[in-house]
Amino acid sequence: MKLECSKKSLLNAINIVSKAVSTRSTLPILNCILLTGDREGFRLLASDRELSIETDNIESDLYEKGSVAIDAKMFADIIKALPTEMVTLTVDEKNVCHIKSGKSEFTINGQPAEQFPEVPVVNKRENIVLKSADIKNMIKQTIFSVATDESKPILTGELFKFDENCFNAVAIDGFRVSWRKTVCEYDGYTEMVVPSKTLNELARLLSDDENEKATIYYSSSYILFEIKGCTIVSRLLDGEFLNYENLFVENSPVKLTANTHELLSAFERATIVSEDNKKTPVILTIKENNLNIRTTTDRGLVNEDVPITLDGEELVITFNARYIIDILKVVEEEYVTMNFNTNKSPCIVTGVTNHDYKYLVLPINPR
Amino acid sequence: MKLECSKKSLLNAINIVSKAVSTRSTLPILNCILLTGDREGFRLLASDRELSIETDNIESDLYEKGSVAIDAKMFADIIKALPTEMVTLTVDEKNVCHIKSGKSEFTINGQPAEQFPEVPVVNKRENIVLKSADIKNMIKQTIFSVATDESKPILTGELFKFDENCFNAVAIDGFRVSWRKTVCEYDGYTEMVVPSKTLNELARLLSDDENEKATIYYSSSYILFEIKGCTIVSRLLDGEFLNYENLFVENSPVKLTANTHELLSAFERATIVSEDNKKTPVILTIKENNLNIRTTTDRGLVNEDVPITLDGEELVITFNARYIIDILKVVEEEYVTMNFNTNKSPCIVTGVTNHDYKYLVLPINPR
Repeated sequence: MKLECSKKSLLNAINIVSKAVSTRSTLPILNCILLTGDREGFRLLASDRELSIETDNIESDLYEKGSVAIDAKMFADIIKALPTEMVTLTVDEKNVCHIKSGKSEFTINGQPAEQFPEVPVVNKRENIVLKSADIKNMIKQTIFSVATDESKPILTGELFKFDENCFNAVAIDGFRVSWRKTVCEYDGYTEMVVPSKTLNELARLLSDDENEKATIYYSSSYILFEIKGCTIVSRLLDGEFLNYENLFVENSPVKLTANTHELLSAFERATIVSEDNKKTPVILTIKENNLNIRTTTDRGLVNEDVPITLDGEELVITFNARYIIDILKVVEEEYVTMNFNTNKSPCIVTGVTNHDYKYLVLPINPR
Repeated sequence: MKLECSKKSLLNAINIVSKAVSTRSTLPILNCILLTGDREGFRLLASDRELSIETDNIESDLYEKGSVAIDAKMFADIIKALPTEMVTLTVDEKNVCHIKSGKSEFTINGQPAEQFPEVPVVNKRENIVLKSADIKNMIKQTIFSVATDESKPILTGELFKFDENCFNAVAIDGFRVSWRKTVCEYDGYTEMVVPSKTLNELARLLSDDENEKATIYYSSSYILFEIKGCTIVSRLLDGEFLNYENLFVENSPVKLTANTHELLSAFERATIVSEDNKKTPVILTIKENNLNIRTTTDRGLVNEDVPITLDGEELVITFNARYIIDILKVVEEEYVTMNFNTNKSPCIVTGVTNHDYKYLVLPINPR
């Protein structure tokens, strides 16, 4: 392989694929980026077997076709440090790569392209077209409640459910449910569970541009995202997702509305005296016009008052503050509503007027 | 103790003292900040026994004198998160602290001030006045070659030598010597070895303002720096420093001059194929008009050419690139001179016209 391209476009391509490079693999080939120059052009591919990211063709002058796998970290370090914009890359038949730029010359041993894992083929018949920004927002607003432990593998992913022009994203970790929906052009019905790592990378690579589109193709085992700059292929999770809709009961005799930011910062302060930032029990005392939030640990005590509008009865209930904080951080509206039933029933967080999201959090049971 | 002050000035004070708080201590009192309100005012103090930093008085309304030690991290987290600028701090006779701001109230257990380590008293008779910016620069330009291993404890500090209006800072780690000097108003003679941790904190707290002054007081065991905003007291290292002046021999038959930035980036690229970023042997081939830098490791090969002006003979010599990089990073002049003798003798890096700094690096001996 022999080609010339710019340092800038090569760095950009490395940045796109880098997160799909295995970081924990003992198999050296999985720590590599695959460089391919063929009649379609020159592009980079990285894969950790579960997830693969391939760039679109990189602007370049390709003099000789070929392909090689190069250690991702070293390749990135070299390209970053090159002294000029013009990069010449030559790979010989023994996979030895020469990278030249100005008066710098690097010679590194690549590995045979054949050893690189193959990307699963996803049939491109049926597709779903969505706004890139919609997917990005839906992921950001739900991903925090994906299960992190592997006891129920299906919950380490997020449900994407398409149902007659409605796109639902749902994440459940056993203590809480995050459910966002938005309208979409696709009027069929289908659902799939996408691993959280894939969603994190997808959100990172998706643009905020309201005019940009992403196309989804899928099979029973794989999903393919065609987005600006690259193609992402991921394994889907196998199994039946939880039935989340029944969890959201409409019976809420206690309903408080408060300023989202005030509520968030009060809950955040309530965690400061906690020994374990991930688990801070806070007692909520809901009264006419006032929500009192109180934390007591061996390290100290925090007492917060937040003005609210209460619709219904007074209530005292205990939550893990972290779960409420995660939700309030992604609520974009100025005001938010928290719906309660008893002190043993979940709290349901909704918009005051916006009904595109619903969050459910289990309380900590009183002793 | 009872007082009111602003969140901003309290945060600023916490930031000043925070680095003197012990991070590895199992003694809880050393993880604390001491708050003192007396007739002089209200101020913070932190100490890890070797180094203590005390703020100047913080603007406040002091209603009741007193003092208490509070866990530094929790105190910082609380003050950062407070909802309003106005902070009320109350400490009762059992060292329980109440921190109030707006509708937030924190109650935390402090510890008795008496348990806090005492700051050594340094007699304030003789003093040395220096420009703050000078001390800061001298430290930054030498501190990297302080010894990190404890085999010769004296070398874990830096020599401050004052000799008839000349302030010298010298750091030696067994492989290299960094020596900077600058003029100063003090016309006496004295020398002391300051621990590197103290110097790092001092450099962090010193201002770049050319008009600002710092005053040094010292005894045989301690040094005290009075700088803007705070007072720093540190233990001095005990023992005799190495005689560094004799190491800088003037006999240099090989003298190359090059652009500092070009030289630095070539050496930096030469380390990319290295397995150990701290130790990269690079072969320098010094010829008329050209310095070739070459690294070969199991991971690959780097070849760099840098244009130079050579005064003297050609030479091939091997160095650890890291040592040269550390020096070139702190050379402020556009051009720099490297002086060599044989391939077993040290390289001496100096300014082309500026003679206020001299760096010495041992080569890696040819096998």
